[in-house]
Amino acid sequence: MEEIKVQTTSKSELIDLTSLVQDHVNKEKISKGFCVVFVPHTTAGVTINENADPDVPRDILASLEMAVPFNANYRHAEGNSAAHVKASLVGSSQLILIENGRLLLGTWQSIFFCEFDGPRTRKILVSVIANQ
Amino acid sequence: MEEIKVQTTSKSELIDLTSLVQDHVNKEKISKGFCVVFVPHTTAGVTINENADPDVPRDILASLEMAVPFNANYRHAEGNSAAHVKASLVGSSQLILIENGRLLLGTWQSIFFCEFDGPRTRKILVSVIANQ
Amino acid sequence: MEEIKVQTTSKSELIDLTSLVQDHVNKEKISKGFCVVFVPHTTAGVTINENADPDVPRDILASLEMAVPFNANYRHAEGNSAAHVKASLVGSSQLILIENGRLLLGTWQSIFFCEFDGPRTRKILVSVIANQ
Repeated sequence: MEEIKVQTTSKSELIDLTSLVQDHVNKEKISKGFCVVFVPHTTAGVTINENADPDVPRDILASLEMAVPFNANYRHAEGNSAAHVKASLVGSSQLILIENGRLLLGTWQSIFFCEFDGPRTRKILVSVIANQ
Repeated sequence: MEEIKVQTTSKSELIDLTSLVQDHVNKEKISKGFCVVFVPHTTAGVTINENADPDVPRDILASLEMAVPFNANYRHAEGNSAAHVKASLVGSSQLILIENGRLLLGTWQSIFFCEFDGPRTRKILVSVIANQ
Repeated sequence: MEEIKVQTTSKSELIDLTSLVQDHVNKEKISKGFCVVFVPHTTAGVTINENADPDVPRDILASLEMAVPFNANYRHAEGNSAAHVKASLVGSSQLILIENGRLLLGTWQSIFFCEFDGPRTRKILVSVIANQ
């Protein structure tokens, strides 16, 4: 298991983790199995989507903001309820297959850390399991 | 694999399962590996979020209700379509790493059973896999 | 690991994969363990929900369309931003327990491939891991 630190710089931000996760798989020398990416925060999450066009992550953040507005009739006094909801919508973990030592992602897929209440110093847990 | 029974008492409700899940990990005497929490229902789910302030689960339920209103132009005759949609949004399973026999949750993270069409008697499946 | 091809026929569509996934579990002769269903696309996903009443999948698609409208102020020039967002909301993978060679799904649960930008030829990756 490896803990990766990420420094976010905005309130809402998607950060591509794919090469960091692949680096972990390389270090573990796993040929075939599974990789788990887990975010141990409640106002951040992890998703898989396209990074070829930077407008895709921007549209994802804008759409989530439309569906879960920052300002609504929330009770939580800290003022970041929308971030908590978005974290539950995208989820706290992603599971990716590994074959021949490579993450089996589709052509357009990247793994994104999702910051919904930044800027903050965040961590991501990455772990692999071999599968004979 | 263990089947945990939960009795919900409201239409919409988040119930903290963290200690029940940790109990299962203790019983299985797994030091390092993964824990899977799976909800075998279609109008309930499981999410990971904050339970320190009870307003966070309340805001999550209220936000989901805003994004997926109970009353809309649904076709499903049972009248619980919103509950089905919410189940797909939060998801049917959560995957948590285990190290030194402990669920590797962040400081603020709890595992919540999500009731969207209660009150009902529900079950949750918990299983672990060791990882050397 | 098996790659399953699916031909979708509409813009938005849920396709029941349960029997195809169970077939893979049968072929692998796994008695106890986990099954991972992974979708390597960024405008499609996978969810678990009810298929007894075909109005449930229809209501899920309609609700997602309400929460994430096809036409909004998106920047991504391809015009399919809503599909990317929906993919992140339902997720790219599902994890299902296996006992006695059977997927441990609830009575009403089916595994659905979620097409959000069809019609297209899509693939789904299915993999199992034994757990003694």
